Amino acid sequence: MHQTERQFVERLRALASRHAPARRGTMRLRRGIGDDCAVFSIVPSSDSRRSDSRPDSRNDLLVTTDLFLEGVHFRREWQPPASVGHKVLARGLSDIAAMGGVPRYAFLSLAFPKQTPAKWMDEFLRGLLQLAETSGVALAGGDTSASPSGVVADIMVMGEVPRNTAVLRSGARPGDEIWVTGQLGGAALALAALRKRKKASLAAATLQPLFYPQPRLRIGRALRERELASAMIDLSDGLSIDLARLCKESGVGARIEEAAIPRSARTPLDCALHGGEDFELLFTVRSERTRLLSRRIGGVPLTRIGRIVRGRKLELMRGGKALPLPVRGFEHF
Amino acid sequence: MHQTERQFVERLRALASRHAPARRGTMRLRRGIGDDCAVFSIVPSSDSRRSDSRPDSRNDLLVTTDLFLEGVHFRREWQPPASVGHKVLARGLSDIAAMGGVPRYAFLSLAFPKQTPAKWMDEFLRGLLQLAETSGVALAGGDTSASPSGVVADIMVMGEVPRNTAVLRSGARPGDEIWVTGQLGGAALALAALRKRKKASLAAATLQPLFYPQPRLRIGRALRERELASAMIDLSDGLSIDLARLCKESGVGARIEEAAIPRSARTPLDCALHGGEDFELLFTVRSERTRLLSRRIGGVPLTRIGRIVRGRKLELMRGGKALPLPVRGFEHF
Repeated sequence: MHQTERQFVERLRALASRHAPARRGTMRLRRGIGDDCAVFSIVPSSDSRRSDSRPDSRNDLLVTTDLFLEGVHFRREWQPPASVGHKVLARGLSDIAAMGGVPRYAFLSLAFPKQTPAKWMDEFLRGLLQLAETSGVALAGGDTSASPSGVVADIMVMGEVPRNTAVLRSGARPGDEIWVTGQLGGAALALAALRKRKKASLAAATLQPLFYPQPRLRIGRALRERELASAMIDLSDGLSIDLARLCKESGVGARIEEAAIPRSARTPLDCALHGGEDFELLFTVRSERTRLLSRRIGGVPLTRIGRIVRGRKLELMRGGKALPLPVRGFEHF
Repeated sequence: MHQTERQFVERLRALASRHAPARRGTMRLRRGIGDDCAVFSIVPSSDSRRSDSRPDSRNDLLVTTDLFLEGVHFRREWQPPASVGHKVLARGLSDIAAMGGVPRYAFLSLAFPKQTPAKWMDEFLRGLLQLAETSGVALAGGDTSASPSGVVADIMVMGEVPRNTAVLRSGARPGDEIWVTGQLGGAALALAALRKRKKASLAAATLQPLFYPQPRLRIGRALRERELASAMIDLSDGLSIDLARLCKESGVGARIEEAAIPRSARTPLDCALHGGEDFELLFTVRSERTRLLSRRIGGVPLTRIGRIVRGRKLELMRGGKALPLPVRGFEHF
């Protein structure tokens, strides 16, 4: 994130919170900028004639938006169009998963250059709609435009959770265990290999984590239903930076075990610690509840990698020694 | 709209409707692609223990997304940054107005080049948040990214209307009168003047319709509350094409009076007929209800320009003669 972008986001957060009352009409914003999704409750309208003050809906609404830009998030010469469509939606679904939510509807804003081949567009749509179908999401609208340069996509996903049950970034407490889903660093490893221009020689299995990440909807939902996750975030930008975000929102520190970080034998530690785009989930569990946690959900392993501690320090345990955890990766708001 | 884009939108509409059941969880999609906004009702969840089948919320939810791209929708060298921020949000608000809705929350996705001056960003935000404040909208989230070329903005606006009262494009019937708000063609006139590169010589009043269009939220809402509009659309792409869209969705034709089209003395007919970005409202009124219609709402004139007819033809009346109305302008989905 460059300086102007950082300043802009800081200014936006300050201004948005000043301008954002908790309630507009029948929508109450329970959580705005600073989590994976915004969370809204639907409350009785002010001119309601109902005498009771029960909420209008038993479910809260989740909303997330994610940009996916050619030249920033993907390269058309590297990535098959079906994978681009898949990832556009996967980014939004992963945010819903990180709240323990169930995705319902998506809106796609898409700009593309005039010379984009029809076949590319078809494959893009196929990749997107296939993931929509398997995730139970319907495309409800959007916008298209010509683009003066590369492909520009912005996905908005709406989902829901039972009222007051969305898993926030802010719920971690000292003593909680830190867990992650799946293996980390696979997407960064694939990207590094592509940068060395040897795509033809790369196995499909190597590229899979980068090209077809699977949003962990089932796991996020199960953790929320069983009340196992005290806080959760998706690993879109890298373990170190996303852990730092969760700790900041919770007002805590963390200590993670280098040896415990789940990665393949070929994946360098740096990819697993700081590589983005894995779209796995990082979550915290109260220590007395970890005995209720399965070690695998839907075939995906869950791994304990550390513990939440008092204070604000992030530490990496290596051979019994505590080192400061460097925080690197992308930043968004 | 170029050929690939047209094909893409057609394919998307077909696929989306096939993949989109009317209901997902507690959200029922009442109106998807093909109107100014998507319309959702909040219904009881399937595991509800309530015995009654009343809807969960008395309000329907409106959702719209709009792209605004440098080099397509604006030029940075022509347009002040506050105006860019204003228009990003105005586009979304205008869609809410066209449903008779009240806007509540907005999400901004924004990508900009690294070298964008901080002052430009500040002014952009100022323009956007000023319109948000006067429109009663709070910024609830979004995404930012670096952009490899120009500024890319996508706005998502959520609004609401009392259940089942959103004014759709599809409600026009033969015999209905056709009305528009304000004056048409002002934005196209300003754009034509800018293209002649004489910005310094242009009066602020000339540029106002292009740089600071006012979404007609108050009028849209008043028409919906008084049950005066049988169908409505905002004039984002031009009178002829937006009228054609409303007629297509309603399955009707239209006859408009050239002499009745409201435009300033300096505005050529072509600008008023086909010029985009006016963000005025076009709406239809049952003939027996037009006596209830004010000729001015909030200082903005309302003008009758024609009538809905049977069939599918769009005609322009000039000196008593009916000519085919050429349809030109931008197309989106």
